[in-house]
Amino acid sequence: MKFTVGQIAQVVGGAVEGDADATVSSLAKIEEAGPGALAFLANAKYEQFLYTTRATAVIVSPELPLRQAVAASLIRVADPYSAFTKLLEFYAQATRMGKRGVEQPSFLAESATIGPGHYRGAFSYVGENCVIGENVLIFPHAYIGDRVRIGANSIIHAGAKIYADTVIGERCVIKAGAVVGTDGFGFAPQPDGSYRAIPQIGNVVLEDDVSIGANATVDCATMGSTLIRRGTKIDNLVQIAHNVEVGQHTVIAAQTGISGSAKVGDYCVLAGQVGIVGHIALANRTTITAQSGVQKSTKEEGQVLQGYPAFGLKENQRATAVYRRLPELERRLVALEKSQSAPDKS
Amino acid sequence: MKFTVGQIAQVVGGAVEGDADATVSSLAKIEEAGPGALAFLANAKYEQFLYTTRATAVIVSPELPLRQAVAASLIRVADPYSAFTKLLEFYAQATRMGKRGVEQPSFLAESATIGPGHYRGAFSYVGENCVIGENVLIFPHAYIGDRVRIGANSIIHAGAKIYADTVIGERCVIKAGAVVGTDGFGFAPQPDGSYRAIPQIGNVVLEDDVSIGANATVDCATMGSTLIRRGTKIDNLVQIAHNVEVGQHTVIAAQTGISGSAKVGDYCVLAGQVGIVGHIALANRTTITAQSGVQKSTKEEGQVLQGYPAFGLKENQRATAVYRRLPELERRLVALEKSQSAPDKS
Amino acid sequence: MKFTVGQIAQVVGGAVEGDADATVSSLAKIEEAGPGALAFLANAKYEQFLYTTRATAVIVSPELPLRQAVAASLIRVADPYSAFTKLLEFYAQATRMGKRGVEQPSFLAESATIGPGHYRGAFSYVGENCVIGENVLIFPHAYIGDRVRIGANSIIHAGAKIYADTVIGERCVIKAGAVVGTDGFGFAPQPDGSYRAIPQIGNVVLEDDVSIGANATVDCATMGSTLIRRGTKIDNLVQIAHNVEVGQHTVIAAQTGISGSAKVGDYCVLAGQVGIVGHIALANRTTITAQSGVQKSTKEEGQVLQGYPAFGLKENQRATAVYRRLPELERRLVALEKSQSAPDKS
Repeated sequence: MKFTVGQIAQVVGGAVEGDADATVSSLAKIEEAGPGALAFLANAKYEQFLYTTRATAVIVSPELPLRQAVAASLIRVADPYSAFTKLLEFYAQATRMGKRGVEQPSFLAESATIGPGHYRGAFSYVGENCVIGENVLIFPHAYIGDRVRIGANSIIHAGAKIYADTVIGERCVIKAGAVVGTDGFGFAPQPDGSYRAIPQIGNVVLEDDVSIGANATVDCATMGSTLIRRGTKIDNLVQIAHNVEVGQHTVIAAQTGISGSAKVGDYCVLAGQVGIVGHIALANRTTITAQSGVQKSTKEEGQVLQGYPAFGLKENQRATAVYRRLPELERRLVALEKSQSAPDKS
Repeated sequence: MKFTVGQIAQVVGGAVEGDADATVSSLAKIEEAGPGALAFLANAKYEQFLYTTRATAVIVSPELPLRQAVAASLIRVADPYSAFTKLLEFYAQATRMGKRGVEQPSFLAESATIGPGHYRGAFSYVGENCVIGENVLIFPHAYIGDRVRIGANSIIHAGAKIYADTVIGERCVIKAGAVVGTDGFGFAPQPDGSYRAIPQIGNVVLEDDVSIGANATVDCATMGSTLIRRGTKIDNLVQIAHNVEVGQHTVIAAQTGISGSAKVGDYCVLAGQVGIVGHIALANRTTITAQSGVQKSTKEEGQVLQGYPAFGLKENQRATAVYRRLPELERRLVALEKSQSAPDKS
Repeated sequence: MKFTVGQIAQVVGGAVEGDADATVSSLAKIEEAGPGALAFLANAKYEQFLYTTRATAVIVSPELPLRQAVAASLIRVADPYSAFTKLLEFYAQATRMGKRGVEQPSFLAESATIGPGHYRGAFSYVGENCVIGENVLIFPHAYIGDRVRIGANSIIHAGAKIYADTVIGERCVIKAGAVVGTDGFGFAPQPDGSYRAIPQIGNVVLEDDVSIGANATVDCATMGSTLIRRGTKIDNLVQIAHNVEVGQHTVIAAQTGISGSAKVGDYCVLAGQVGIVGHIALANRTTITAQSGVQKSTKEEGQVLQGYPAFGLKENQRATAVYRRLPELERRLVALEKSQSAPDKS
């Protein structure tokens, strides 16, 4: 795909300064861009790159003054970042998400229904009585079990596995290798010390605009639903156990694990490798820093917690600072004890 | 599937109180149940839900007295929990695990043998010289490499990958996306600082009744076998490295990692996100709390360990309590030092 | 596969002591070997096993003196370990990596090119305009998206997913279920508290001799490339976020996570379950011990860091030792305070 700078300017509603006939075929950061690339400058602190960039064209704001000569063609537009993001979206759509139609062999149960505008990649599987909306992309090797419902414009990536009875909203993204709706880890201890599997007959419900990361796992509920509310974004290799509920517009970073029946509020941020124990509830707008372990419910909104067990960030940071000096503190304690036991000499 | 309350009572050997002709089509918790659902009440502390539930029918014990009017039909049976679990198992079997037969396209090497009563989903792969028992379910996209042996009544879920020479017992469950038997992480450092892969020619042996979680990984041994003994249950995203041995009836929660050649005893419980270093051995009935890191072998049975490095749970909890007060302790130490250096003023 | 001891001796250039016509069909550790197995003895501290092993043959060094009778045939060769490793490689190649040709059904886009000597397993997928070198093995259910380039002699294992525009060098190994090149976790917060996905149009570049573990995830760059330099080995379930750069000949153990735009140097060792925060850089030859969390860049080469937040290993170990005695320290502090507040009695 090649476009002239003039064509790009027209698309984003901008004005060209310099060669409008120069052609660009890729998008890049201003400091990394090479010939043929289109970059943008939104933050004044990167202005120096404008004078050294090898980009063919740069999107800048209308009022940006030029302090030196600029080799690149400029496209002046009111909001350079938004304009560039639009181009990114267009590019991603055109190069990676523009798939439509059906590749063979693929498997679609006769009782399943699927809306127009979809893509079903080779070796994808859609089970009995599935109801799939329009413009849904199902990449190769995706497995969609029986009675799954998927809303319009969702994307099921390569090798994702969606188990029976899962309900997925609109505009959701299930990344490659994610497993949604498999049996939870429920076992009843037996008198002889062995374990018997507790049948898991619930499901998973993902509301609209939810994103599930690559190779993440979301278990179905024992009964009822494991629930991820709308707009929540979950990163790679995250574990969501059975009967968990995560509120809306919450962000969960990679490798975090949430144990069974825990509840996470709305607008929370869980950083990477966090652990949440089972059956607790986190208030809305709670932030948990990386690698922390949360053992108790919280009621106050907006807290930032850290550590294991997690408590207030600042309090934890102060304790951590002293921790590092513990050997010194112990020496000072010993010194005090010695002088105490020999008070006569003072 | 719809059943009358009377039919259900007959299946579980109970007596109906109320409308025996009412129909139920789902199972639910008593506090979440709606019309058409069958619930149970086994624990007296939930009794109040009996008077408010919207369930169509509830399984209760014969002696439960009614303090208020109950809208639901009752099925009285000696052990409500067991009766309900039987229904759960029946339901799970009927709706999700009742698959039989072969979907096409699927791949079965000519030299492989597979017993009667099996399911081979579309796009499943069974390699050369595999020997697979009866009633084994192989879901779509499962990969079973050469010479793998799988015992009767095991389930290989969608997209699980079982590598060459793996031996799987009876009634095992390998969940979606799990990888069993791939090469271990063995590299010999070279004089120039680079690494050369050490060929891994061993295998993985899972005894009877083992469960491996979704997207978990179990590496094959360098030589010999990585071994998981019978009845052991492993959760999602767990890593079992090469030459590890895990005893029988042990439970390992999500995202825990066990390093190469470590041995875990029988009847142990490893909570989530635990790390076990290589070449150590944990005694039987050891419990490790979440996010702990175990660096040393243990010999005494029945210990509960916590922390990094892990030591006794109570000891660790006491240290953790003081940790939180470290800044205050330091202030008190400084105060003592000051008064010490100015003894004259006392 | 059966070989006589004489044939093995010829292959490794050794001399037989004992029965040259005895046959071996497997390789094993000397302490675990049974009849029909070939073992080796490279380290004098295992010498006692030589006199008790049930192996049919053992590879030993030319100068090893025999203190007792040995039942096994011996093959004397200058470097027993290297000779044995060669046999291991031959065995692994013959039994597991010797696949060639194409199994059906499989999917190869017309515009893709693939070199001679390759294997494409059933249900493997190769997208548009891929360029794949010679002797590449593509196992069943592997997904290779559009425009991916893979160098000669690389192995893409079962169910690995390689997303569009990924570049893979020669002799790389992508293990089962790994996801390379999927969208990074980039979301722009909106004024209403929701998040909007930032299109990710970059790619992943793996240089020569890189290994990616089973079910590991490597995200593509937002723009530009997520880069793993040559010789670097990454274990199972590791997360590499978008725009990360990892140097050459670095080893990253299982379940470690590296956040967006972080840089890891050459010849580093990251143990298991480590976390690296985003946008920091680790100097060459840095070692991070298991479960540590690194929050700051390092400049000095060759450091060993531990803890959360990570600092010097020895310093951390000393602090940890005191940590365990914190309750005792607090009691001693209280004792000092008491004697201080009652100075008259001294």
